[in-house]
Formats: sequence, structure tokens, C-alpha cells
Amino acid sequence: MTAAQSPAAPAARRRTEWGTVALVGATGAVGRELLGVLAQRGHRIGELRLLASARSAGSRLPALGAEHEVREVSREALAGAALVYFCASADVSREFAPAAAEAGAYVVDNSSAFRAAPSVPLVVPEVNPGAIGPSDRLIANPNCSTIILLVAVTPLHRAFGVDRMVVSTYQAVSGAGDPGLDALREETAALSRNEPPRPTFFPEPCAGNVFIHESPTDPATGRNAEEQKMIDETRKIWGDATVRIAPTCVRVPVMRAHCESVCLTLREPAAEAEVRRLLAHAPGVRVVDDRAARAFPTPLRAAGGDDVLVGRIRPDESQPRDGERFFGFELFISGDQLRKGAAQNAVQVAELLPG
Amino acid sequence: MTAAQSPAAPAARRRTEWGTVALVGATGAVGRELLGVLAQRGHRIGELRLLASARSAGSRLPALGAEHEVREVSREALAGAALVYFCASADVSREFAPAAAEAGAYVVDNSSAFRAAPSVPLVVPEVNPGAIGPSDRLIANPNCSTIILLVAVTPLHRAFGVDRMVVSTYQAVSGAGDPGLDALREETAALSRNEPPRPTFFPEPCAGNVFIHESPTDPATGRNAEEQKMIDETRKIWGDATVRIAPTCVRVPVMRAHCESVCLTLREPAAEAEVRRLLAHAPGVRVVDDRAARAFPTPLRAAGGDDVLVGRIRPDESQPRDGERFFGFELFISGDQLRKGAAQNAVQVAELLPG
Repeated sequence: MTAAQSPAAPAARRRTEWGTVALVGATGAVGRELLGVLAQRGHRIGELRLLASARSAGSRLPALGAEHEVREVSREALAGAALVYFCASADVSREFAPAAAEAGAYVVDNSSAFRAAPSVPLVVPEVNPGAIGPSDRLIANPNCSTIILLVAVTPLHRAFGVDRMVVSTYQAVSGAGDPGLDALREETAALSRNEPPRPTFFPEPCAGNVFIHESPTDPATGRNAEEQKMIDETRKIWGDATVRIAPTCVRVPVMRAHCESVCLTLREPAAEAEVRRLLAHAPGVRVVDDRAARAFPTPLRAAGGDDVLVGRIRPDESQPRDGERFFGFELFISGDQLRKGAAQNAVQVAELLPG
Repeated sequence: MTAAQSPAAPAARRRTEWGTVALVGATGAVGRELLGVLAQRGHRIGELRLLASARSAGSRLPALGAEHEVREVSREALAGAALVYFCASADVSREFAPAAAEAGAYVVDNSSAFRAAPSVPLVVPEVNPGAIGPSDRLIANPNCSTIILLVAVTPLHRAFGVDRMVVSTYQAVSGAGDPGLDALREETAALSRNEPPRPTFFPEPCAGNVFIHESPTDPATGRNAEEQKMIDETRKIWGDATVRIAPTCVRVPVMRAHCESVCLTLREPAAEAEVRRLLAHAPGVRVVDDRAARAFPTPLRAAGGDDVLVGRIRPDESQPRDGERFFGFELFISGDQLRKGAAQNAVQVAELLPG
């Protein structure tokens, strides 16, 4: 277990210089966040093209120290780009991403359009940077709740093997983009005026409420699409079709960071101190676990930050143990949905691409 | 399994006539709710004494069609009562409840003071009405999250045996009483004015946030007191010290109804149709599980109602199965914390007492 206990070596490559970069969906919640992440991480870009739907074309956005006019996405608008970020709907990605990749651009797609395609790498840079092959042009960004989960859990998977995870999420409305954010703002204002709760965007009122993730439920399995993504994407990213996951995906009235309550079953038992040491040194993880001060991961603490916060680290005494080594561990984690769950992960993927 | 599959017979006894009834903690969130429950359930009471701390003494409260002056709790104020509800702190219960019971009153204690005492029955009327013996005078009301869990899960425990439960909660601020309710109201108003989040009562900001339950954490186990209660109280109520529970207790910005994401491991496998049939006929349960309409239990749907709502009923394919029978099932449940989680359960306990 010695080799497995050292955290994954950070990818040596970190490309931050690009010629022409296009951002499709620049005016949306993830697109705007991505512009901030590019600046924060010091990306130097020859020409930045901000693209969006016809509805947003003509608006102006500040980015990387200049103001840019937003243009409508089209094949012509993507021509000659070295890198294209897709932060719009899966339909937009399906229409434009393959052509952009065929035309020679690197494409990092934040939508769900190609995540399941066997030929498309699905990448969390802290987890599987090696999944990007030398001829890959189109790389998919995983779903937000899967990224946040795997940044926290992969160090334990590498060391001990994760056999099964029971995951209950506390997901922010930002996962539904600007309409979700607007709905929570509007309904919170209505709540503070003592108006009766009324759904403005989600199937249920979002302020003062908790509800099952709004994605459709498969009538055969009873799982909703968000839950199925967590299962399918984890298996693909880990390259392990045997890992078992029981997810329950739930929205809470929080703006932009998800939490997840995670109960793990390991293949080999671990001591609590080993688990803590691995998490303390894991890339992209910050341990927040102060029992005396009652300071644990919260969405407000995670929002705006780069790291996935991990706390409530404890052996699960409801599972088998071997002396002071436990097969079960529990964690509570939180990560910014717009950043590590979307924009930041996409930029980190681009940093892995050959220069 | 045939006998086990029929739901528990409702207790035949339902006492609603009382001589003198005292309510300690009448001005608090649970006390006020209890007055409403007494009226709703048609209790007829000879003399109603509303008692509270010295701070609240002298205020007036409407109850059962009349206005009552609130008096300070004391041994004298409890003298001659046939029934005393304690809806104040554990300290107040410790000071006054045993003496009231020794003086001949029935005592239903909503605090945690006596829940663990072997001589004190801990009762959820739908689950273990028979726990009240003929000489019992003091009966403890379980913790809110335990009551709501057991109303939903006990029918499955009776039929198939529950071996293990992984439970993640989404708990309303009402569990912390009026200070919790006031904090969420105040912080929601501040949030809608775009003020920076600031905790006003809980260790973390409650509006726009999610945080681990504020009860103290045991440094040895890593469990907080709320989680330990769920384990200890379930074992006592079921009379089964072997049931294993992995709880994670979390507060969400919701006023008065808890949700719980529950992943069960059964001792004997069950078909989904059997599970659904048991829950559809279970006392105190209402199944809300419309996949097409995306209608599942929510705190807003549970608030103000008598029932524990149960939905997202699905086999857990991450656990072993035997053909079409599964050892694992998942549920998402919601119940009103102030009602079934506290006041309503206490009144239902009183209805079990001999006339």
C-alpha cells in the first residue's frame, strides 16, 4: 500500500498560453465564472472570442482586462480557434463541438453531450489526467456533483479501493444556471416578505424548501438523471465498472456550492489516521474538520474557493472493522459548483493539453 | 412473513378527556404547537395550566377557545395535575418531571432528560405503544429526527428486519426552537437585502447555507449528539441493540419540517411492490412518490400535516439481491418537526394513557 498512499503526482504540464480561445456560453453563469478563472490562473490568450446564443449576441462583457462584444455562436465564429470551451446546453455542444474538434481545435465541453462516449475522455485533473491521449481533441468535463465527490474520494480509492458509496447531496441552485440563481433570489425575497411559497422555475418552491433534483426519473430504476450521472461518470473516470454507488440527489436553498454526505465501504480496511493523512495531502482538497469549534465544510465556506472541503472524517462503526482498521468511513464535503464543479475544472483540463 | 406484513393494529385506546392538564414551556415553539394539536384532536380538558419560565410568566395565550395567563413553573403550579406535558429544556424536566410523576400525574416529556433511562418508556405511538406499562407515569418523547425516521421505517423493520441504515438528514431550524426560527427569519431578510452572511444564533450562518447539526461532537466517535440520539433511541424503541445506523445530521435553511435520505439494508430481501404496499398502509405514513410529476416529499409539503411523507421508494441496486427481491432499499422522507417530531407525538402518547 506504500505507493498507493502517496498522492497522485500533480500533472507536470500546465499550459496557460493560447492563441485564439473561444468561449461558447460566455454570458451564462458558468461562462462568466470561467472568465474569472482564466484571469485568476494567469492564462494569456491571443484572441478571446465570447460567443453565445443569438439572444445574447451584441452584449458586452469584460474579460482579461478588456471589454469584448459577445457574438452569436456559429461555425465561422469558431474557425481558427486553438481551444473552445463549451459552457452552454448539450444541444449547442452537439451542434458545434465535434466540428470544432475536427477543424483542429481542442474542445473542453462542460455539457453532458459527450460524457458517455467511449472515445471522449472524461477528466478531473486531480483524478485521471492521463486519460487524455495524444490524439484527443474533445474532452468532456464531468457533472458537478461527480467532480466534487471524486476529488475528495479518489485518494482513498487509490489507497484502499472504494467498493461502495452511499451519497446524499445538498445541491446548490447554480447547477441549473442563471434561471436557478434567479429563482432562489426572487423566492428568497418573496419569503422575506412573508408571501406564500410558489415555484418560479424548479418543479417545487426553492426558498425555504428542499426537493429532489429536478432531472427526470427513470421509471425502471427510480433513479433521476443526476443520480445516474454520478454512477456512470464515476465508473468511467475511475475505469472501474464494479464500483457500486447509491446516490440521492437533492436541491437545497443555497446559491453556488454543493455539499455531499458520503458513506464509503473500502475494499481494504484503513486506520482513521491514514485516511486523514491522505486527505490532508490530496490535491484539490482542504480538510475542514474542527470538532471542538464545530467548523466543518459548508457551502458558504466553499463558495468562491478552488478546493473541495472535506470534514466529518470518521470511521463508520456500522460497518465491519479489523481491530483499529475500518472498512467504513464517512465524510461530509463541499465544493463550489460553478468553479470546481464546472468552470475551474474545465480550465484545469485545458492546462493539461499539449502546448 | 404473513403476520409481519400486516401493519401494526392501531392502539384501541384513545384518551382525549382529562381533568387538570399542565403544559410546561407553553410559550415556546413546541408548546404553542401542542396547544393547536390539542384543539385539532378534540381534547377536552377540565383545567388547562400554561406554565413557563419566570421571564414569560404573566403573558397571555389563547388555547382551546379561552385566553389563559401564563404562570411560572413550580411544584405548586403542577400540584393536582392529571397530566403534564414538558416542552421546555432538559434541565426544567429534570427539576420538575420526576416530582410531578411521583405526585401522581402522567408526564409526557419532550426533552432528552429521561430518554435513555431504562425505566422510562420512549414511545412513538405508531411504533411501540405497548412500551407503556400499567405503572408507568413518566413517558419520554423521542428526538424529532428519530420519530420521523421510525414512523417511515418500522413497517419495513417488522416485515423484513432492518439490519443497517445510512441516514443523512436535512433538518429544519425549528429543532432549535424559537431562537432557530428567529435566526432563519432574520438571516433570510438580511440575505434578501444582499447583506453578507453572518451567524445570528447557530455556529454558522443559516440562510443560504447548510451546516452540520450544532450539537457537540464526541471527540472519541466523531458523532454529534443528534446522531448519537438517532442510534440510541432507535435501538431502545425497537428493543433491538443490534441494529446498525450511520447517521449524518445536517441543518438546512428550512423552517419546520425535516427531511431524511435513508438507505436501508434488510435482513430478508423484499420485493419493491411489497415495500410499497406496506408503506401505503402504514399508520402515520403518506406515500408521495409520483415520478412522472416529480412530486416527492418536501418540507413545505410536510409542514402543518400529521403524516410522515415517504417517497423515492426504490430498490438499492448497490446491495445484494435475490432475483426480484432486494436487500437494499432507499427512501426519502419528510415530517413536520414541531408536530410529529414533537408536539403531535406527545399528544398521541397521552392518548395511549389509561382513562
